[in-house]
Amino acid sequence: MKSISIGLLGLGTVGCGVVKIVQNHQDKLMHQIGCPVEVKKALVLDVNKERGVDLARIVLTENPHDVISDSEIDIIVEVMGGIEETKKYLMEALSNGKHVVTANKDLMALYGPELLAKASANQCDLFYEASVAGGIPILRSLVDGLASDRITKMMGIVNGTTNFILTKMSKEQRSFLDVLKEAQDLGFAESDPAADVEGLDAARKMAILSTLGFSMDIHLNDVKVEGITKVSNEDIVYAKQFGYVMKLIGIAHRQGEKVEVSVQPTLLEEDHPLASVHDEYNAVYVYGEAVGETMFYGPGAGSLPTATAVVSDLVGVMKNMRLGVNGNSAVLPQFEKQLKSDEEIQAKYFIRILIEDSVGVMANITSIFASHGVSLEKILQKPLSSSQQAEIVLVTHGAVQKDFTCIIEELTNLHSIQSIKSYYRVEGEI
Amino acid sequence: MKSISIGLLGLGTVGCGVVKIVQNHQDKLMHQIGCPVEVKKALVLDVNKERGVDLARIVLTENPHDVISDSEIDIIVEVMGGIEETKKYLMEALSNGKHVVTANKDLMALYGPELLAKASANQCDLFYEASVAGGIPILRSLVDGLASDRITKMMGIVNGTTNFILTKMSKEQRSFLDVLKEAQDLGFAESDPAADVEGLDAARKMAILSTLGFSMDIHLNDVKVEGITKVSNEDIVYAKQFGYVMKLIGIAHRQGEKVEVSVQPTLLEEDHPLASVHDEYNAVYVYGEAVGETMFYGPGAGSLPTATAVVSDLVGVMKNMRLGVNGNSAVLPQFEKQLKSDEEIQAKYFIRILIEDSVGVMANITSIFASHGVSLEKILQKPLSSSQQAEIVLVTHGAVQKDFTCIIEELTNLHSIQSIKSYYRVEGEI
Repeated sequence: MKSISIGLLGLGTVGCGVVKIVQNHQDKLMHQIGCPVEVKKALVLDVNKERGVDLARIVLTENPHDVISDSEIDIIVEVMGGIEETKKYLMEALSNGKHVVTANKDLMALYGPELLAKASANQCDLFYEASVAGGIPILRSLVDGLASDRITKMMGIVNGTTNFILTKMSKEQRSFLDVLKEAQDLGFAESDPAADVEGLDAARKMAILSTLGFSMDIHLNDVKVEGITKVSNEDIVYAKQFGYVMKLIGIAHRQGEKVEVSVQPTLLEEDHPLASVHDEYNAVYVYGEAVGETMFYGPGAGSLPTATAVVSDLVGVMKNMRLGVNGNSAVLPQFEKQLKSDEEIQAKYFIRILIEDSVGVMANITSIFASHGVSLEKILQKPLSSSQQAEIVLVTHGAVQKDFTCIIEELTNLHSIQSIKSYYRVEGEI
Repeated sequence: MKSISIGLLGLGTVGCGVVKIVQNHQDKLMHQIGCPVEVKKALVLDVNKERGVDLARIVLTENPHDVISDSEIDIIVEVMGGIEETKKYLMEALSNGKHVVTANKDLMALYGPELLAKASANQCDLFYEASVAGGIPILRSLVDGLASDRITKMMGIVNGTTNFILTKMSKEQRSFLDVLKEAQDLGFAESDPAADVEGLDAARKMAILSTLGFSMDIHLNDVKVEGITKVSNEDIVYAKQFGYVMKLIGIAHRQGEKVEVSVQPTLLEEDHPLASVHDEYNAVYVYGEAVGETMFYGPGAGSLPTATAVVSDLVGVMKNMRLGVNGNSAVLPQFEKQLKSDEEIQAKYFIRILIEDSVGVMANITSIFASHGVSLEKILQKPLSSSQQAEIVLVTHGAVQKDFTCIIEELTNLHSIQSIKSYYRVEGEI
């Protein structure tokens, strides 16, 4: 029986996980596909490096063309990362009629549509489940499981590093920098943590999720991004008093024909399903018109979880090969992209302000909100000991983003306000 | 362009949901499938009944053969319920070359393998996502999303009625019968609630889940079942003191080649992802060797959520029709069924005992545990006011089921013990 041959681009953490799963679960794979499957070659930076997996039957090479032009290789698994160079390899592999499975969110967020079109033109499959939320089969669930529904909202905790940091900050009342350091020591955060803590990694995943969920070509640049570097412990403590939990949330919301996609530190109602997603776990909450609320939870990263998603995609490709129907899975976007303007985005906000504790301040503040038609849901005023100052925490009802921006500007100019300490979006109601 | 025709068996809550989704989401369906789809006929008990959906283009009939023998109908959607008669119709429909989508857990738990074999023999698809956990795409996730992994444990809150009742009992400290009554008034529980509260409904779903997850032909009779009718409010209150939440949990556990499948009221560690699944929601927690912990959460019942799963299955069938590859999706069980004996099942237990408060009782009790090699993790003794009695609550470390049964028997015979009030399995550690 002819076996199916796989070529790996990259043999790091995820690549080694793929090798392990293909070796350890060979029986299950063979039962499903009907023939053996083997990793034939792997592109590496250094063929002599020790990797802790059995590489006896795998040819290692430092030349990408040894892999992407090998006529015996059926499927390319791309787990090397990188963007421009990697794209070139994959376009070439697809031209060579090879199916592709990738875990590369950076690449898919930027060049997904182009790569998918290339795959389609060459009757090849291009699957990328592992690019979003590691081991959670969320892309399939959007495309197949909820195929009949109209998805109107997705909220995702799609970055494990920031969720780990915020969980620790909340539970142990420690500062951002302090916990970041620990996360780096534990290997949960990169030595250059910018892509994680500035929200870019989450934004890439939200671009991919919203493209699929809304059937619209959402680009990374369409995603508004704000990271967690300014989140303070006081914010978390005050939020808790109001029944909120601080999370870095990717929000994709469709109303009528228009959508918004953003990533920002967000205060979630504590009984929302996402509020109990702790540590480095990921979860994607999906609201569909017919199905209502669903949530998909699991590990967002890590060698074996991510490799599970890659190999499950491989199974998909191989089943299609058996049936001779590769290259038919991708559904092109159904709708023109229409992004909401600042006048169309509506949200609740939490604001923390430091004031001089004098007559009429609260009246001044609340009248600014009122003049923009924004009403307040919760108010807390607390004198600060040993000073003439007080802190005010407010939670608005739904406010148009443009109005809210004006309110912040006017508050900043108010004499009796010392400073606006912070403000966050509030989510959790449907 | 030729449209695809659907015949409905049954036009109750779910059937009407299917009609609504097919009508309302016609654009999305057409975009995915490439041709229109319409419900052509529906089998009903009474053609004159008012149903609140647009039936203008649907032929209603009281004769099943009008539907299953109609040569223009491509796909049969079975949402009528029932077992023997329904099976006959579906076998006939499959013989007629019609694909089948069903939401019928009773049928699939009993005759799934037989129906799937029939479908396969006739090159037909038979999909049944809606039979487990309503709107949650859990069957697909097991079969496709986690295709490459070896699943070792599944725990499910797969019955909305009992989860609603236990949530209310916990939050409002009310009795089982009191909350059951309310659930019946609200329409969350049937007037004959036995199948739900005795655990049978959950057992059916666990048979289906474990058959797929373990690739083994698990029959309903293989599932040990215990319902929630004996759960008392005191149990819930004591459990809470120990950090546990009471849930009706379906447990499917594989160790080596052997499996156990059961449904019982279970005490979950309060930080377990399933512990925060409240009200009528369902969730399935899946542990895979490679992926680790995942959880799938959503509505377990209801007209539109269940219909979403049905119509998503329809999309799957129709995509296969377009590609000409129907009848290839079902993977036959890979393994011979091997059930664990009572000597192979291990679990932690919570036990609540009423004793005479006299010298040496605790020593007697603990020595019974010790003599069976079972050690204790937590102990609480509490005097009861106005009597010479005390309550003891114990939590064991892992105990072999057979030993635990002996322990309960010996405790029952101990003079100083007034009664064993209750005992429950404890879960939540991996």
